Amino acid sequence: MKIAVIGAQGHYCNIIEAIKHNNRISVDAVAPGTVDENIVPVAMDFAKVGVNVRLFDDYLTMLDEIQPDIVAVNSYFYINSQITTDLLRRKINVFCEKPLATDLNKLSNLYHEYLKSGVHLTAMHLMRDMPWFAAAHKAVRQGRIGDISVINIQKSYILGQRDAFFTSRFTYGGTIPWVGSHAVDLAYWFTGERFKSVTALHTKKHNNSHGDLENAALCQFVTEKGVLVSVSLDYMRPQTAPSHGDDRIRIAGTKGVVEVIDENAYIINDEAEGVQKLDNIDGGNMFESFMNEVKGFGRCPLTAEDAFYITRICLYARESADTGKTITF
Amino acid sequence: MKIAVIGAQGHYCNIIEAIKHNNRISVDAVAPGTVDENIVPVAMDFAKVGVNVRLFDDYLTMLDEIQPDIVAVNSYFYINSQITTDLLRRKINVFCEKPLATDLNKLSNLYHEYLKSGVHLTAMHLMRDMPWFAAAHKAVRQGRIGDISVINIQKSYILGQRDAFFTSRFTYGGTIPWVGSHAVDLAYWFTGERFKSVTALHTKKHNNSHGDLENAALCQFVTEKGVLVSVSLDYMRPQTAPSHGDDRIRIAGTKGVVEVIDENAYIINDEAEGVQKLDNIDGGNMFESFMNEVKGFGRCPLTAEDAFYITRICLYARESADTGKTITF
Repeated sequence: MKIAVIGAQGHYCNIIEAIKHNNRISVDAVAPGTVDENIVPVAMDFAKVGVNVRLFDDYLTMLDEIQPDIVAVNSYFYINSQITTDLLRRKINVFCEKPLATDLNKLSNLYHEYLKSGVHLTAMHLMRDMPWFAAAHKAVRQGRIGDISVINIQKSYILGQRDAFFTSRFTYGGTIPWVGSHAVDLAYWFTGERFKSVTALHTKKHNNSHGDLENAALCQFVTEKGVLVSVSLDYMRPQTAPSHGDDRIRIAGTKGVVEVIDENAYIINDEAEGVQKLDNIDGGNMFESFMNEVKGFGRCPLTAEDAFYITRICLYARESADTGKTITF
Repeated sequence: MKIAVIGAQGHYCNIIEAIKHNNRISVDAVAPGTVDENIVPVAMDFAKVGVNVRLFDDYLTMLDEIQPDIVAVNSYFYINSQITTDLLRRKINVFCEKPLATDLNKLSNLYHEYLKSGVHLTAMHLMRDMPWFAAAHKAVRQGRIGDISVINIQKSYILGQRDAFFTSRFTYGGTIPWVGSHAVDLAYWFTGERFKSVTALHTKKHNNSHGDLENAALCQFVTEKGVLVSVSLDYMRPQTAPSHGDDRIRIAGTKGVVEVIDENAYIINDEAEGVQKLDNIDGGNMFESFMNEVKGFGRCPLTAEDAFYITRICLYARESADTGKTITF
């Protein structure tokens, strides 16, 4: 199976994790998504795990020469949907950075290309792989907190000094699609439900000269069965913080509460007095699952339909924040 | 200074704390807010701190006989505004349970009575007294996290089996006014800003046969200078939880993050690497501050105008949740 990577901006690290876990996985080539994208760091990261990749200046040339079975797409966010379109038209399976597109029009066009292509596609919603989120998810799905009433999700990142493409809505897409898509995925994954409505807010007031980048955002969703979901996103985590991201989820149900904080999962329910730590569990590796799906073994837990759905919800949430209106699906 | 208490449903415990702290404070009498309210537990609680109170069957008789300088009002939530009106008309200073009223019409009438009365009034927003919230507030007000971008507030309670008056919107008022008024107070206190808009949600889907009681609610506020505030309220905390309430606040600013969790306050900013615990500080006692204000010494940190404002915002937030519409002030 031939694998290639396009772009250097996203989560190709998931493939590196897959290689560490299974040394029969390899990557053949990497190419930039645009002429100005520096792909050398990607090649160096693969070299560190013993994989020497061919470097191409142009991804179309790479596709013609390498004829990959799977391509991971993670270039500048605005261009990923165009790259994915090129891949789908060549019947190449796509492991794509989220969001799949940075506006609803691009997403709709991409979805039609996907339907025509007949290939496999998924998006890099990699929080599902994390052992603490996997542990929390398992506990919730086992019914250990009963029926869910409310979910609170937090993503807080260090801003630092971001590349220029983060500072334009056109190239970046917005904090709700970029950071918030993880939260939407988590809510969708934990509840197993679609959404009925969203009301969102975002601000760029204290974004430290990052142009259009929204340094904070809030969303409120209601799922189809009435679960209330709050999402808080920000780039306000200071440089002195002990980690890049402060990812949290808290799920309150009729029989208890599960939460993830500081890379640990906890539960309070009728099984014991007080807060109990959940054992972390192997969350798997999304790229490896996707590769197996392409090979015909099993299904990647996140389907293409899921990936399109999550991006669409994020783009509507961004629209809600832009317009100040609640959007009902 | 003569002090009396009406009702048994709220936070008269703040007066007990004041007595523990200053044994010159005493309470003269207690009376129910309605004929069916059992006031005996209140008298017993005062007896435990060495204060023997007179019990009355009827608060108007008590007022005539005792002629109190201050009355603490904490009967059934729907009746507190009527009791407060009776007190204001007698020119008696009022230490009132929040919310001050359970609908906007009652609140408006009460506000006019207050303006005519010329007496002192405040509401029991007692989270300000808690040493961890006081510590967090001090750090934020000292500028240690810079300008605030986003605030997340959580109040999670054990539901248990609540008295019947919690199960009717008319007698209870709703979870957003009752529980959420603490959150609105915290946001107002930490930012020092008024609010521009609110969008709220609430649900009674999993309220364990508690009638109208909303077991979960979410609110999103924007302050006048653009701080985003999320509030999550629920009664989903299981009986096995280590405490009744899981109160949290997280304030993210341009220079760092302060948060309160598990009755401790923490900061991350440029002063040190990693998360630092803040020393708890004496948050004072709101009843004692109010008593001093009535005596002519200093000002209670929460003015009557603040108390009316916070209740008004909560009632609009409830309206937003009832109607599904964003309300702009």
